[in-house]
Amino acid sequence: MLPCSVVEATEAQQLFLQLAIAEAVAGVQARDGGPFGAVIVQGGRVIARGRNRVTSRPDATAHAEIEAIRQACTALGTHSLAGCELYASCEPCPMCLAATHWARIERVYHAATRWDAAAAGFDDARFHAELAGAAASPSVELVHVAFAGAGAPFEVWAQTEGRTPY
Amino acid sequence: MLPCSVVEATEAQQLFLQLAIAEAVAGVQARDGGPFGAVIVQGGRVIARGRNRVTSRPDATAHAEIEAIRQACTALGTHSLAGCELYASCEPCPMCLAATHWARIERVYHAATRWDAAAAGFDDARFHAELAGAAASPSVELVHVAFAGAGAPFEVWAQTEGRTPY
Repeated sequence: MLPCSVVEATEAQQLFLQLAIAEAVAGVQARDGGPFGAVIVQGGRVIARGRNRVTSRPDATAHAEIEAIRQACTALGTHSLAGCELYASCEPCPMCLAATHWARIERVYHAATRWDAAAAGFDDARFHAELAGAAASPSVELVHVAFAGAGAPFEVWAQTEGRTPY
Repeated sequence: MLPCSVVEATEAQQLFLQLAIAEAVAGVQARDGGPFGAVIVQGGRVIARGRNRVTSRPDATAHAEIEAIRQACTALGTHSLAGCELYASCEPCPMCLAATHWARIERVYHAATRWDAAAAGFDDARFHAELAGAAASPSVELVHVAFAGAGAPFEVWAQTEGRTPY
């Protein structure tokens, strides 16, 4: 399973979690979206904040963590957030957790859990189960089509000099 | 495991996959990002296209599927893409697959696979293993902090009349 340690937080960690929770509460009050907030910290300093904006934007991907990662990338001018930490009001859903992988974030601190989110009516726990292959009836059918031209993008990629890997 | 059937594609499905692959190739040639493209189809009509823009924007979350979902939500004016299908040049990574869950997309067709992406130097297969709990050394440490105020966002949410669930 994924590593998940329950720890006593330092004063700074508690402050960052409070900021993430404050984003979540303010987002609900402003009717921006669901009750989720996040901040990204680099070297003890908050460099980005995000709140859920799914229903107001509208954008199914506008979760608090995704919003914070996008903002941090803009702030730092790079797609890599190596050395950064993410603080989230709630355990990231699989989309947001995988986003922290791609962003090369090293550590995620969260307050509430996927079960708290489920109790509030959100599908985080179910989607975690789907990604883990433990869902009774998956919600998305994934169909692999054998296709002659499937390799073309990777061939062009391999032939492109000075390409930027990530 | 996730459902994944290898099928013979219809003519229309082949066309949509070709469009997704064309986005991927054009994206590499324009140096927008990695070799990945996607289109979203509703009722036999393409309503959104996306290509990877991770390194050019820069934005670690700007995968082709996320870009297409964001564009489709804007086009339809809603966070729900129920009834839509996604065609991707390559099997979606866990971030993008979970995004299709949240967007309520019903079916995903893809040409290349996570193994093709891995062969081209991308971490899709590794991150799939992490989300499935099968990674030897997870890249992100997930830390649950027991925190008195953790429930506040959900309490405010429950008390908000006329809230929009998703």
